[in-house]
Amino acid sequence: MAAWWRAVRGVLLDISGVLYDSGGDGGGTPIAGSAEAVRRIKAAGLKLRFCTNETQATREEFVKKLQGLGFDISVAEVTAPAPAACRILKERGLRPHLLVHNDLVPEFAELDKANPNCVVIGDAAENFTYANLNEAFRVLIGMEKPVLISLGRGRYYKETDGLKLDVGAYMKALEYACDVEAEVVGKPAKPFFESALAEMGVPPEQAVMIGDDIVNDVGGAQQCGMRAVQVRTGKYRPCDENHPHVKPDAYVNDLAEAVDILLQQL
Amino acid sequence: MAAWWRAVRGVLLDISGVLYDSGGDGGGTPIAGSAEAVRRIKAAGLKLRFCTNETQATREEFVKKLQGLGFDISVAEVTAPAPAACRILKERGLRPHLLVHNDLVPEFAELDKANPNCVVIGDAAENFTYANLNEAFRVLIGMEKPVLISLGRGRYYKETDGLKLDVGAYMKALEYACDVEAEVVGKPAKPFFESALAEMGVPPEQAVMIGDDIVNDVGGAQQCGMRAVQVRTGKYRPCDENHPHVKPDAYVNDLAEAVDILLQQL
Repeated sequence: MAAWWRAVRGVLLDISGVLYDSGGDGGGTPIAGSAEAVRRIKAAGLKLRFCTNETQATREEFVKKLQGLGFDISVAEVTAPAPAACRILKERGLRPHLLVHNDLVPEFAELDKANPNCVVIGDAAENFTYANLNEAFRVLIGMEKPVLISLGRGRYYKETDGLKLDVGAYMKALEYACDVEAEVVGKPAKPFFESALAEMGVPPEQAVMIGDDIVNDVGGAQQCGMRAVQVRTGKYRPCDENHPHVKPDAYVNDLAEAVDILLQQL
Repeated sequence: MAAWWRAVRGVLLDISGVLYDSGGDGGGTPIAGSAEAVRRIKAAGLKLRFCTNETQATREEFVKKLQGLGFDISVAEVTAPAPAACRILKERGLRPHLLVHNDLVPEFAELDKANPNCVVIGDAAENFTYANLNEAFRVLIGMEKPVLISLGRGRYYKETDGLKLDVGAYMKALEYACDVEAEVVGKPAKPFFESALAEMGVPPEQAVMIGDDIVNDVGGAQQCGMRAVQVRTGKYRPCDENHPHVKPDAYVNDLAEAVDILLQQL
């Protein structure tokens, strides 16, 4: 295998499609060998951080679900868009109008939401109604300088009952209507990966991102100077291997294989 | 006034915001002097064509409404996106999946809609549900080469109960999710204006467009080599007069003033 594996001291793991496959009902199925792979990374003394664009639930909720599926994971090990957005909102004195999933609302509990001066959009799922979209639009267009913060920029994702439009599509609708550009929090935004690296205390050249999304995981991590490996699980499709702009540093069949390679080098 | 007015032999009129102001309930209020202005254009022997992006009702329905408000208008005088899209679909053997307003569906009655090979999106209003958007998306992404036809590209419009996102915003969402570019039928698309000119039998240099939308009416018509006048009624806003790209050939307070100027030159 390539020599760069030997420099790795920290591992960033995507969650959905790498640890487990999610169901539309909030359930999910672990990917074979992944729970064991997480334990092996920790036992080897490598730094580990879970780096997800999950915005349909609070960190507490989906960490509990993953623990129930057999994963050794805690809330403090997770980098997710909503808490990152909260920090940004506090720093800049922004009061959000929220267009997010009901289960994500508690993440924003501490913030003042009266007389909003920005709109925060996440994967709102069933909350993406005609009325809610018009309302978010009216709040934005009513600002002297509209501020739109988007928790990710995914195009779509797959659930057991079929493909669903992701937050990025609705972000584009609001961007066009208001002639603004959204600020994206979450993968593939550089500050999001950088904050995950800082939380691990590992420089980018000693870190590897392992994910199933060629653009948001692999492309985003490489932009930050990290190595990035694509798993052939989750939303991976064979045509990803012909992506016009992004080429992973390696492909593996699944997380277990990535950890096999990694631990051979230590 | 400028000399070009004297060359005008044909007039294209936008409807909403020029003839009348629409209410969210399907009703509306005529703009003072507009019904008389339409009669004066016809009495002077000028060619006349109504050129609208209306897609919330069939031509029959909204013409009936305008007649009820006192306008001399017939279905044969109206150029609208849905019939134009129907012609394109027939020519190209396309079977549409429709994401449009319920009241527009009859315009597509003649077309085969089984096993769709394109998606047609209009201002679907309350039909822009999360489920309907996901369904249109799945039809599109399932095609080898997705074909998306959009009845206009407006950003938003005003009704009595507030601003509403227009078809253009939802078009952008689907474009982004499927990585395609929509084909726009309706203003400001060049073929749409050209077909209105052909129906009048007037060359562009002898035609004037009168509308309230700086981009879709004024910019679109000028792209076709026509003159274009913006009325200060409907969705006109003072900041339109500082538009970075589009400058009308004239401003008028309303349609009645445009017709005053026009008839003085004959």
